[in-house]
Amino acid sequence: MGRTSDAKEKILTAAHSLIEQRGYTALGVAEICKAAGVPKGSFYYFFDSKETLALAVIDQQWESQRGDWTRVLRDDAEPLERLRRLLEETQADLRAGQQSCGTVSGCMFGNLTLELSNQTEPIRERLQEIFDAQVKMVDEVITEARERGEVSVRDTTEAARSIVAQLEGQVLFAKLYNNTQRLEALWENCLSLLSARRTYTAA
Amino acid sequence: MGRTSDAKEKILTAAHSLIEQRGYTALGVAEICKAAGVPKGSFYYFFDSKETLALAVIDQQWESQRGDWTRVLRDDAEPLERLRRLLEETQADLRAGQQSCGTVSGCMFGNLTLELSNQTEPIRERLQEIFDAQVKMVDEVITEARERGEVSVRDTTEAARSIVAQLEGQVLFAKLYNNTQRLEALWENCLSLLSARRTYTAA
Repeated sequence: MGRTSDAKEKILTAAHSLIEQRGYTALGVAEICKAAGVPKGSFYYFFDSKETLALAVIDQQWESQRGDWTRVLRDDAEPLERLRRLLEETQADLRAGQQSCGTVSGCMFGNLTLELSNQTEPIRERLQEIFDAQVKMVDEVITEARERGEVSVRDTTEAARSIVAQLEGQVLFAKLYNNTQRLEALWENCLSLLSARRTYTAA
Repeated sequence: MGRTSDAKEKILTAAHSLIEQRGYTALGVAEICKAAGVPKGSFYYFFDSKETLALAVIDQQWESQRGDWTRVLRDDAEPLERLRRLLEETQADLRAGQQSCGTVSGCMFGNLTLELSNQTEPIRERLQEIFDAQVKMVDEVITEARERGEVSVRDTTEAARSIVAQLEGQVLFAKLYNNTQRLEALWENCLSLLSARRTYTAA
């Protein structure tokens, strides 16, 4: 049993890394098994198909990222401060990834959205759920900030969507230009998108 | 000669459509030739490799899109009005594509950025040039609007980058949710990102 779970974990880790580097389409099961150091039989013991594996990789990535987002967005700092920290941590994570592998790999969910969303409905649905959850978490923080009179944006959900879209767009450019500084405009842009009070902007 | 150029055009058209539907990695030369209805020999007469073909498809798409952007962004309407029309036309184009093929295919340049930019340097460079050119065109309009006192944003280039990033991010969501209404927030977001005068916002 111990060795079996170990093989599953190895497959997930190898697939995660390969998907980050080269996307989903380019990968074959044989290559994933080779990188994981497990026989091909192990793969089909755990996963029906490459798509099932991709869903498992997505779930594992979101479980980890949701943990980070929850820690930052639901702690007891002031709401806008929490949002600022989320953007800073995202930039720091991309920078750490760039330092370890030489290039900015971007956001796995954004990458798979543009690579795959029109090709596999189960992956599209999973990615929709993840982005819906991200928007909801950001919306909660904006709603809190609005109750405190710190932002005056009318539609908090639309604002949360725009912030997540701005984040994905800037991460896309960070990847294209292999430059995480692209994310430095995010915080000021958030304040603009939220119609934040000037006193807060200056803080 | 006539038939030869025709074959090249057929290959480009087929490749454009296949790349939009399924990305670059999933395609093989044989499939492109089959869709184009040309023999494989024709392919290698015109293109060294799939990468050369992809660059030609990107160039052709940008030539067409640059024409549209130039027509809208450099006509003689007021600068912010031109920017608004660009966003409206982008949404209309995505909607037309969705009506003809059932799904929002998104922005070819954004799609290829997330699929490929870390894998082929020639494609990365070409996509960088295209986004640089887009940012420059938007920057010119913002600069004009600032000279007229209609926006008060300090760094016009940074603002142009943020607008193009916001556009790419919202197009990503339009594709994921197969819903072009995602782009409706763009104009209000632009006004926020530009610190546009309220009187203009109300117009």
